[in-house]
Amino acid sequence: MFRFARSVALAAALVSSTFLAGASAQTMLTEKKTFEMPSFTTQSGRALKSVKVGWESYGTLNADKSNAILICHFFSGSSHAAGKYKETDAAPGYWDAIIGPGKAIDTNKYFVMSVDTLVNLGANDPNVVTTGPASINPDTGKPYGMDFPIVQIGDFVEVQKKLADSLGIKKFQLVAGASMGGLQTYEWAARYPDMVARAMPVISFGEADANLIAWLDIWASPIKLDPNWNGGDYYGKTPPNAGLASALKVVTLHAQHWDWANKTFGRKWAKEGENPANGHDKRFLIEQTLDNAGAARAKTSDANHFLYLAKANQLFVAGGAGSLEEGLKKIKAPVLLIHSPKDLVFPPGGVDDTAAKLKAGGASVEQIQLKGDRGHLDGVLSMKQVEENIRSFLAK
Amino acid sequence: MFRFARSVALAAALVSSTFLAGASAQTMLTEKKTFEMPSFTTQSGRALKSVKVGWESYGTLNADKSNAILICHFFSGSSHAAGKYKETDAAPGYWDAIIGPGKAIDTNKYFVMSVDTLVNLGANDPNVVTTGPASINPDTGKPYGMDFPIVQIGDFVEVQKKLADSLGIKKFQLVAGASMGGLQTYEWAARYPDMVARAMPVISFGEADANLIAWLDIWASPIKLDPNWNGGDYYGKTPPNAGLASALKVVTLHAQHWDWANKTFGRKWAKEGENPANGHDKRFLIEQTLDNAGAARAKTSDANHFLYLAKANQLFVAGGAGSLEEGLKKIKAPVLLIHSPKDLVFPPGGVDDTAAKLKAGGASVEQIQLKGDRGHLDGVLSMKQVEENIRSFLAK
Repeated sequence: MFRFARSVALAAALVSSTFLAGASAQTMLTEKKTFEMPSFTTQSGRALKSVKVGWESYGTLNADKSNAILICHFFSGSSHAAGKYKETDAAPGYWDAIIGPGKAIDTNKYFVMSVDTLVNLGANDPNVVTTGPASINPDTGKPYGMDFPIVQIGDFVEVQKKLADSLGIKKFQLVAGASMGGLQTYEWAARYPDMVARAMPVISFGEADANLIAWLDIWASPIKLDPNWNGGDYYGKTPPNAGLASALKVVTLHAQHWDWANKTFGRKWAKEGENPANGHDKRFLIEQTLDNAGAARAKTSDANHFLYLAKANQLFVAGGAGSLEEGLKKIKAPVLLIHSPKDLVFPPGGVDDTAAKLKAGGASVEQIQLKGDRGHLDGVLSMKQVEENIRSFLAK
Repeated sequence: MFRFARSVALAAALVSSTFLAGASAQTMLTEKKTFEMPSFTTQSGRALKSVKVGWESYGTLNADKSNAILICHFFSGSSHAAGKYKETDAAPGYWDAIIGPGKAIDTNKYFVMSVDTLVNLGANDPNVVTTGPASINPDTGKPYGMDFPIVQIGDFVEVQKKLADSLGIKKFQLVAGASMGGLQTYEWAARYPDMVARAMPVISFGEADANLIAWLDIWASPIKLDPNWNGGDYYGKTPPNAGLASALKVVTLHAQHWDWANKTFGRKWAKEGENPANGHDKRFLIEQTLDNAGAARAKTSDANHFLYLAKANQLFVAGGAGSLEEGLKKIKAPVLLIHSPKDLVFPPGGVDDTAAKLKAGGASVEQIQLKGDRGHLDGVLSMKQVEENIRSFLAK
């Protein structure tokens, strides 16, 4: 789910070979484009002026615009789903293992696009374009801060819909995404059933359950403890990066399974000769690694954006109906539901519940389990193992 | 594991009937006693003067002092394992369902005792007596703060050992405890194998694994983000109770399984008519409940004590040997190992690993699973279901 987890993985020299495979041989190059709307009205009814989001595409849109695929990104991700910006990039986009020429989502055949969400976490990442609390409010000339309206997964979908409209795309052959990208996938399939030929939600549910609601609050809590957060008013001042780093540390650990933690780190010390028994500043390797990952990721992220994303995820119920059952009934597309039995963020029971409700609502559902020790993150890092399932699903 | 979770449970009107059963009919009354040592030298080699801890007992020590049982407490617990201080107490000690006249641990037969640990979390609880950072250093007349030496599970055991010596107890018929109490149980059995006739570690491992080490750091992190923590120097000033409450909130959620969260709260709002979509201050019920539980518990707790407890747990490997295998080989007592398959703090795989290493080291091991949706907390709240197993184990 979480892009910054790659720094953890790198620190631990544990990046899976499948994850890097996409960088080999022929590199698919891409670029960040910007989609701008003079105005955009949120679900909450607020009209925002000059709304911009970044987007990327891989492959070529055909003449009748019938070969488009939409990839929706996860909580800490961006539209950089595949390829590299330049040959020398350290790593390609996060799903490069399954998106590219000849890959499961074959860019020789499909036009694959992905869009940075509103309130994207990486507001300070030069490769992200987003509109959110850190953006300048054209009416005041100052950043919105916490005056930015609360946005929902449905708002992210509406932005993508407007971009699709602008490109003349009437239907996606596939809408897919991991974690929060899976939420957007469900929302697309329920909100625009005639525009979604196939849906592939990965490591996600049809709604945020109580457990996820509570964990999102736990993730976000350190930000508000940081005195630099200052009620969200920190632009032009020192940002609350200690709180934000702590929040990102929680996410990094929660998004992975204990088997990963134990096999990777054991009881190793952060520094040779510095026994953690000898001081509060002497740490175990796993503590130091998670701290470093959180701090590194905080540099390109925005704390208020984190809070808005947490809220958007908490509020999610697919299809905006009174109940999940009603919302999922709107879905016509066949669903390829991919999840990890070791996922602690969207645990398997909730995935089964969504699958059952999808079926009860009339949808065709195929469910596949990922193997791995990364837990939730296997839906980002370990997708190559299901490439044949994705290929078959697209061929149907 | 965590006593404050009872306030969550109460708020949610979900206290299990087994948990309250002990309060009915005949109430067993107890009182807090104080054990004081003129000096105590920690494992780290620091000599502390005038070390005090609280303790309780239930039942009567027989003439030859052969009927003693020791109960070791969990992270946020105290020596109040059973009974009430007065008839009107809202609830009895946490394991009252299995300790009392005629119960699994029968106080008509056994003398059951329990001891507040050093650096006990409840430093501001009138029913806890402990020595730690919040205590006055007799050499300076001021609280130790972060100058208090790092202590380990072995130090907690040594304090208990000195109390046992003072009572003339040469051997315990049983040493038992949940979570951190289970760590103390393993340490007792490995450190003083001739003093432990039987060991019953509940919801715990023989060592802190990487996953637990990391989560203990996550739990503790909010404290240091609170500006009132001030490097641990806050005595006589405003304590870092916002950070401490946040820490306790994480523990409360982590100590319970998602089935509990989802079945208890669903997507209910904290206040009728206040849709969480309409403001950052409008919350879901589970968020508000966990916040309240953390804040309530913070009032009787001390933030530095939390940090010291986290460190003590992180450092734990049973028996103080080079490896867990070596440490567990020292154990002679038969072991009744009770755990929950839904425990997210000490997950089942680690319990199996400890059991396998115990057996490899020559110990006799019986393993039992608890049923329930509380996850880790089932080892505190749901013990009545294993009363017959405990009875049989004691009869052997």
